[in-house]
Amino acid sequence: MPEEARNDAREEHDAFAIGDFVLENGAKIRDLRIAYTTFGNLNPDKSNAILFPTWYSGTHTILEQAYIGRGRPLDPDRYFIILVNQIGNGVSSSPTTVPPPYGRARFPQPSIADDVRAQHRLVTEAFGITRLALVLGGSMGAQQTWEWAVRFPEAVARAAPIAGTAATTPHNQLLVDTFIEAITADPAYDDGWYAEGAVHRGLRRHARLFAAAGFTPALFNRALWRDHGFTTVDDFLTGFVEGHFLPQDPNNLLTLLRKWRSGDARPHGGGDLARALARVTAQVSVIAIEEDGFFPLADIEAEQRLVPHSRLVRVTSPWGHLALFGLDPDYNRAVDSALGALLSLPAPQEVP
Amino acid sequence: MPEEARNDAREEHDAFAIGDFVLENGAKIRDLRIAYTTFGNLNPDKSNAILFPTWYSGTHTILEQAYIGRGRPLDPDRYFIILVNQIGNGVSSSPTTVPPPYGRARFPQPSIADDVRAQHRLVTEAFGITRLALVLGGSMGAQQTWEWAVRFPEAVARAAPIAGTAATTPHNQLLVDTFIEAITADPAYDDGWYAEGAVHRGLRRHARLFAAAGFTPALFNRALWRDHGFTTVDDFLTGFVEGHFLPQDPNNLLTLLRKWRSGDARPHGGGDLARALARVTAQVSVIAIEEDGFFPLADIEAEQRLVPHSRLVRVTSPWGHLALFGLDPDYNRAVDSALGALLSLPAPQEVP
Repeated sequence: MPEEARNDAREEHDAFAIGDFVLENGAKIRDLRIAYTTFGNLNPDKSNAILFPTWYSGTHTILEQAYIGRGRPLDPDRYFIILVNQIGNGVSSSPTTVPPPYGRARFPQPSIADDVRAQHRLVTEAFGITRLALVLGGSMGAQQTWEWAVRFPEAVARAAPIAGTAATTPHNQLLVDTFIEAITADPAYDDGWYAEGAVHRGLRRHARLFAAAGFTPALFNRALWRDHGFTTVDDFLTGFVEGHFLPQDPNNLLTLLRKWRSGDARPHGGGDLARALARVTAQVSVIAIEEDGFFPLADIEAEQRLVPHSRLVRVTSPWGHLALFGLDPDYNRAVDSALGALLSLPAPQEVP
Repeated sequence: MPEEARNDAREEHDAFAIGDFVLENGAKIRDLRIAYTTFGNLNPDKSNAILFPTWYSGTHTILEQAYIGRGRPLDPDRYFIILVNQIGNGVSSSPTTVPPPYGRARFPQPSIADDVRAQHRLVTEAFGITRLALVLGGSMGAQQTWEWAVRFPEAVARAAPIAGTAATTPHNQLLVDTFIEAITADPAYDDGWYAEGAVHRGLRRHARLFAAAGFTPALFNRALWRDHGFTTVDDFLTGFVEGHFLPQDPNNLLTLLRKWRSGDARPHGGGDLARALARVTAQVSVIAIEEDGFFPLADIEAEQRLVPHSRLVRVTSPWGHLALFGLDPDYNRAVDSALGALLSLPAPQEVP
């Protein structure tokens, strides 16, 4: 899987065709395709693979831009890095990619667990990898990382969930509900059967809500958006946040939001989170952003305490949850440092 | 002004008729009426008066229930306490009380400064009080408290702004914008010319947004709403939060929200907050709720540092900003303690 020379992140990707895939809720996605891209080369004993699933409203492209690079922990000269698009993000099978009658508002609702089940097939069937050196991800990517470590403990040597939880909290669900409502309350949404571009008011409303909780008060009050060429708060919100969300499809975003809302590793512990997290055998660096308005430090710390071989890494950023995007060099350095330390830990012994 | 015997907070109130009142933006409210209620008796030298303006979506009733009582700092046996309804809250002149053509969506937009100018006339003209022993208020009441201490320093011996700022921050404005948008995006809102009860979807959406940032994650995650008889998160949000907002009038709420958004004491300092706050001669206890998602501790602390005779009092509550409502006994005790200490401080010398 040779890597092409490139100056910028690449849009192109590969797709793993799973065929018909039955979700945990019993619904079936026809011809499920998991889109991914890889960097570096898999070594002969297949021990250098890293899996990195996407977050809400992101694709493999932003992960590459923000986290991968020579000399950084996610170094394509050392590791075989698989960036995988979650179901519903518009690149893997999504409301926008599935033909009638199953697309758009009829796209079956997947769960975080469904993504991880599909990704496990990609990793094992497409590459023959039985154990990943590292699974990491931010936000919804952290939800998938947790699900990997709990569902397939033997397949995960190390895990780094960043700014996300194993079981979505009631408060986080309320927050997600406000995002869902921001979109669906637009009359143009029309139960999901909207005309192209029609739901822009709902998307703009969603974008500003997202910004209010996703960034920190300090970012706005110290006008740190100035560093990126914006001239006013409104210019920043329009250019950066609305600019990010407006091109996206409302049904895709709603599929992701509902998946986010239902993220829950507890079923692996018979409904008990402590029992579920006790299944984890990986070395885990749980990374929390102290100012995070989506996944508060206290909630992340409460989960980390339940994980056997784990440590809490606190990073700080005025960009809050959205430091994930990689715009804050201090955040990037702190996370790289944590990932480097985690990758240098010996892999735990495989369970016999 | 005799106080009637009563078992519960009283709905009735007095009204101070100001007549035509020109706002700072040049618009005029015809026959402005400021509704208030008093407790206790004004002493002969008129040195025991306390002014307590309302917060967003509240009236004098909740202030009485949560903060006034014999043996508490706001003791009607010791003080003459004036609870004053802010303009637009539905009790003082508001979109719902003003006749055509000036009511409803045509109600002139007042500012925090306008409220304080009108309250100053109430205090001086109706009662002949030249100096208040204490001005206090929570949230928008804190905004009014700040405006009092900066605009009329000689008239304020002590001030206790609780969970609110002297100058609304850009982040706080963004949050208020999401509340405004939650109401106005309801098609039934119809530019403010809605049928009675028609905007309930917008009000419900606004209520849930308000809850997501107004309470803390811990309140939801530890299900502390159970203490008040609610059975599920949804039951709590419907019964408590929607139940609070649904009876309110959208135009009234929007008048308050726009007033909140524009709160700004800086003009008294030629646009400079430090110069404005340096005008304050009162003893000031700035009370911040550590978990406050509306008015973050850091923002409140930054202002307090600019006030000459001031101290920061940090209180903590899983109810977050909405601890103001008085449902958390620990919050009530902490605030009572701070108010008692403030009232025991000698009044600063009057400026000659």
